[in-house]
Order: sequence, then C-alpha cells, then structure tokens
Amino acid sequence: MKDKLLKIKTLVFDIDGVFTDGLILATSDGDILRQFDSKDSFGVRMAAMNGLRPAVITGGNSPSILKRCQVIGVADEDVFLHSRDKLADFHKYIEAHGYSPDEVLYCGDDLPDIPVMMHCFGVAPADAVEEVKKAASYVSPFGGGRGFVRNTVEMVMKVQGKWNFDVATYQSLF
Amino acid sequence: MKDKLLKIKTLVFDIDGVFTDGLILATSDGDILRQFDSKDSFGVRMAAMNGLRPAVITGGNSPSILKRCQVIGVADEDVFLHSRDKLADFHKYIEAHGYSPDEVLYCGDDLPDIPVMMHCFGVAPADAVEEVKKAASYVSPFGGGRGFVRNTVEMVMKVQGKWNFDVATYQSLF
Amino acid sequence: MKDKLLKIKTLVFDIDGVFTDGLILATSDGDILRQFDSKDSFGVRMAAMNGLRPAVITGGNSPSILKRCQVIGVADEDVFLHSRDKLADFHKYIEAHGYSPDEVLYCGDDLPDIPVMMHCFGVAPADAVEEVKKAASYVSPFGGGRGFVRNTVEMVMKVQGKWNFDVATYQSLF
Amino acid sequence: MKDKLLKIKTLVFDIDGVFTDGLILATSDGDILRQFDSKDSFGVRMAAMNGLRPAVITGGNSPSILKRCQVIGVADEDVFLHSRDKLADFHKYIEAHGYSPDEVLYCGDDLPDIPVMMHCFGVAPADAVEEVKKAASYVSPFGGGRGFVRNTVEMVMKVQGKWNFDVATYQSLF
Repeated sequence: MKDKLLKIKTLVFDIDGVFTDGLILATSDGDILRQFDSKDSFGVRMAAMNGLRPAVITGGNSPSILKRCQVIGVADEDVFLHSRDKLADFHKYIEAHGYSPDEVLYCGDDLPDIPVMMHCFGVAPADAVEEVKKAASYVSPFGGGRGFVRNTVEMVMKVQGKWNFDVATYQSLF
Repeated sequence: MKDKLLKIKTLVFDIDGVFTDGLILATSDGDILRQFDSKDSFGVRMAAMNGLRPAVITGGNSPSILKRCQVIGVADEDVFLHSRDKLADFHKYIEAHGYSPDEVLYCGDDLPDIPVMMHCFGVAPADAVEEVKKAASYVSPFGGGRGFVRNTVEMVMKVQGKWNFDVATYQSLF
Repeated sequence: MKDKLLKIKTLVFDIDGVFTDGLILATSDGDILRQFDSKDSFGVRMAAMNGLRPAVITGGNSPSILKRCQVIGVADEDVFLHSRDKLADFHKYIEAHGYSPDEVLYCGDDLPDIPVMMHCFGVAPADAVEEVKKAASYVSPFGGGRGFVRNTVEMVMKVQGKWNFDVATYQSLF
Repeated sequence: MKDKLLKIKTLVFDIDGVFTDGLILATSDGDILRQFDSKDSFGVRMAAMNGLRPAVITGGNSPSILKRCQVIGVADEDVFLHSRDKLADFHKYIEAHGYSPDEVLYCGDDLPDIPVMMHCFGVAPADAVEEVKKAASYVSPFGGGRGFVRNTVEMVMKVQGKWNFDVATYQSLF
C-alpha cells in the first residue's frame, strides 16, 4: 500500500459519513447543518499547506459546507455540491487539474461513492456500508466524524514525509 | 418472517426514537429540531425509487419534519404530523391507498405506537421501550437513529430483490 | 424503598445533567439550547396525566426551558429558572402546594443540588458527581439524558400502580 | 506531581477538544457553534470563585465563545480568540498578570498547543493526538468535553484544599 500512497497528490472527500458520523440537523427553513471535527479540520489544513490538494464531492447542497471548506483550505472550485453522479464530477475535477486516477485518494461511505472508489485509491471509514467496504482499497479503523479524516490525512502525509507542523506556515494561511 | 416481508408494500415510520435516537433540540421560539442520519435518508429514497411507498405518522409537529420527508421521498399526503391517535391515522393512510394491514410494516419505539404495531408487521429498534418490543413482530439489533431505519429498509428490499442502486434512476429523482 | 416511593406526590427535576447529558449548545446571541429526550418527555406527560405533579428547579435561564416544560406538562408556576439557592426555591414550591418533604422526589446531578436532595427523596443519575451520589437516597443505573428521567418516572408510577397508557386521556391533553 | 500542582495559580484552556469533544456545528452564515458541558462550566466557576484565575487561548473566533466565557467566570481580557501563535499569546497573558510559567496549568489537545504545553504544566485529555500526549506533563483519563475540564479543575483545587462549595459565595457571583 505504501507504493500507492506515495503517488497520491490530491485527497477527495465525501461529506456525510466521512467528515461526520452521518447525522444532519434539519432546520425549519429546510437547511441542513452538520457537526465537523476540529481535528479533521486541522488535518485538512495541514494537507493543503503541504501541497496535497483537498477537494469535496458531496450530494449535500448547504451553504455551510462551502463556508466550512473555505476555512479548512479547500478551494471553491474544488467543491462539488449537490452531486448526483459522483463519477462524472470526479472526472471533471481530475481533468481540471491534470491528475491521473492513481494520484487520487477518495473517501466515501455509501453506495453513490462506489463508482468513484473503483476508479482511484478508495478509502472507507469503519462504519461505511458493506458494499463500500468491499469496493475500497483500504478500510480505516476509524469511523466517519470520529477520527477518520484526520487519520487518513496523517497516513498519507506520514508516508510522504510531509507531516510536520510549522507555526510560521500556519500563520501565513490566515 | 420472509413470507411476511414479501407481502410488504409500504413502510410507515414514527420519527422520534426511530429516525433519531430520541433527542430533540428545543429552540427559543418553541421549535423542535432533530438530527437525521444520511444513511437512513438514502435508504428511504431507495425504497421510494423501487415502489415501496414510505409514510410517516408522528406526534411531532415541526415544519422541519415535513421538509425532511420531502427530501427523502415521502409524499406530503403520506406525512401525518401531530398524531394523537396513531391507529386512527394508520387506518386513514391504508384506506387512502387500498393497502391491507399485512402489506404494512410499521416502525415505532414508545407506548403510543403499540396499537398500530399490533395491527400490522411491527418493527422495534433495539432501544424501544420494553412494552413496544413485546408488541413488535420483529426487534432490530439496531437502535433508533443508529442504523435502525436503513437496516429495516434493506431487510425488506433484499428479501424482495429490490436492493439495487442505479445512478440513472437516482438522478431522475432530483 | 417501596414505602418511600408510595408517599411521593410530586417529581422535581434539575435540567442540565438530568434531562440532558449536561451538554449545552451556546449560540452567538448568548442563548443556550439543550437536547431533550422524547421518551423522557412522554414519561413526564404520563406523570402529569396521572396526578404526579412535575416541577423544575434549574440554574438555567433560557426561554426554551420554559417552552419545553409547557409541552411536557409542567405548569409555568412550577418552573424555577435561574435558581441560585435551590433549597430556598424548593421550600417556596412545596409550601405553595402544601407538600411535606417526604412527598417530594428530587432529581439532581451536581453540587448545587445537594441541599435539596438531603431534604427529600433524592435521586441521582449514574453520571452525577460523587458528592451527589453520596447524598442521594437512590442512584439510578441510567445516566442524565440517557433514560434517567423516564426510568425514574416509571419506577415511581409502577410502584404506585399508575403506569397505564390511555389514548383518550392522552388526546385530551392537546 | 502534587508539588507542581500546589504552585498553580491560573488555569489556561484551549476550547475545541478540551471544553468539547472537538465537534463544531457549522451554520449557514459561517458561524461555528459548540456544545459545552454544564459540569465543566460549574468547575471553572468554582476555580474563579476560589482565586484560581481561568483563561482561554483558542484558534476559534466565534462570539459564542466570548459569551460562554463570561458566564463561566473568565474575564474578557483573559480570552484570546483566533490565536495563530499560542506561545506568543501565552507570554502576553502571563506577563499581564505577573505569573511565572510554573504557576500556569495549560490544557490542550492538538499540535498548535504543544509549544505552550512545553513551557508550563501541560495537561492533555485522553483523546488528544499522540504528539500532545507525549508533550504533556499529565494525561487525564477523561476525554475532551467528557469530564476533562471538570476533573482537571477538581484535581488542582483538591490538592490545594480549595474544592468547597459555598452557596453564599456562589450567589454573590450573579
């Protein structure tokens, strides 16, 4: 697996069940709010700081997702909201940046994620549905929203020798 | 049990303790917000896509329930809010669509659900109150809001050979 | 203990750590929101329906507490918000209704609850602080917000032969 | 360790992963809300009441943090929001009050906390990242948002003989 992780240049994430444990707070005006994890957020910022481009492809369509992505270092152009065909959006994304499929790590947890996961290095949280775990290149011991994103980011960055915290770089981001 | 599940044509759900773990967020204007699970939502959409009509009978009365139901494929006419006599609402629902009681699976977790559960195929989450578990045709190993809805939907659809994800059908829903 | 529970005429509850697991959502306008449990709510309504008066004495001061109390059957006059001396408020409450201390069951989880708990039948959730557990007449196997209120209500009502659900009475409340 | 705790005059806290389990609720207007624990809040008020000054240094920048701090007894001047160099803010804080580093206990859970933790008595929650646990003077058996703050406060106050609840003092604070 180390060989495959060394090739990774971008980390693409589903939102529900990946950045979260799948729970969504439904408000009275029809909006959907989510609880993110501060350690995940820090991990994604570390990736963005060190040249591992983060991206998001989600069926969700809430303004709060886009705002959260901005804070954790995901460029607006790399956030695909309301995705109904994730494989099509995956191809749009990798073509825009010139990535080959084996340079992409994708994290997903439910059936709509499977087509993408079969086209790149797919990683599933411990509580993904069974079909996704079977389609994944790697199943994490951590559940969605419970350490999964942070640990996946660290796994790639440590293999690539990039997991180093530098206060000066961190400050320059804000 | 397989024989009974083969007859099911509609899935009727209570909300609190079924789609959720029972927790409700009380806001200052008297509204009540709930956390739904994205995997449950996908499961109900899969049922709706494949001809297993979903419905809701709940004591709750929040606009957010109706909005959430619309997103996951439950028709407005099949959502009974502020129900104080669930058996009466159950009869209204099955008469409107011409279902017989053995074509209905009902998911409930607390005392007001018992009369309905004794009239059809009743399913209780693992954390339902004891009286409900005794009245249920089947007690799920999954708790409310923790896999119960998704797994109940999959159980019925797999027995009926309907658990197949098709991107084209999925896209046509939005 | 059965003898003592037979005398109980009123159930008095702290809010944080009793109706909840202690977590409070701090909003930007300084308000505090809480997650209540639907099974607890139903239990308190059952008590109110069957002549076991429910009351609340809390250090909290949010409008949402008062609104939630109204829904679950606690009269406005029996809700003491922003209480800084719970024993004083306890005496105001029992004098207003003519209760003697041994007719009162009080549920609390932290140090400010101790003076009250030592004056009546005090019940502590499993996750109360140690000092409260020592001062309690009974320590529940259930944690705050995780079955504690419902199970305490059922315990009293079952001993008194009052735990019977009647749809007609239930409907008349709304 | 007792000798070191006897010297402590101030308790400085990170917010995310310390007062909380790390989860943040992202709203549609870009604000971030958090769930605090009522037992932690009471513990910090007890510290403030008994001459152990509480302070906060956090990367977070939400108005709700400042409002929560006011309620639990942290002076506005001792709240450092949007901190990007925690060690610099730590020095500002201790110089303003004339503390020496060995009079400060600091609670943190992630990489940006390490520089501060190495300059004073650092305490990590059980679910801090590994690097932080290694840098800490003490690792608590309690997780962030799950008893960590309350138990850390009690640990210091009990060693110093200050953990005594007095209703009159408590009332005078409000």
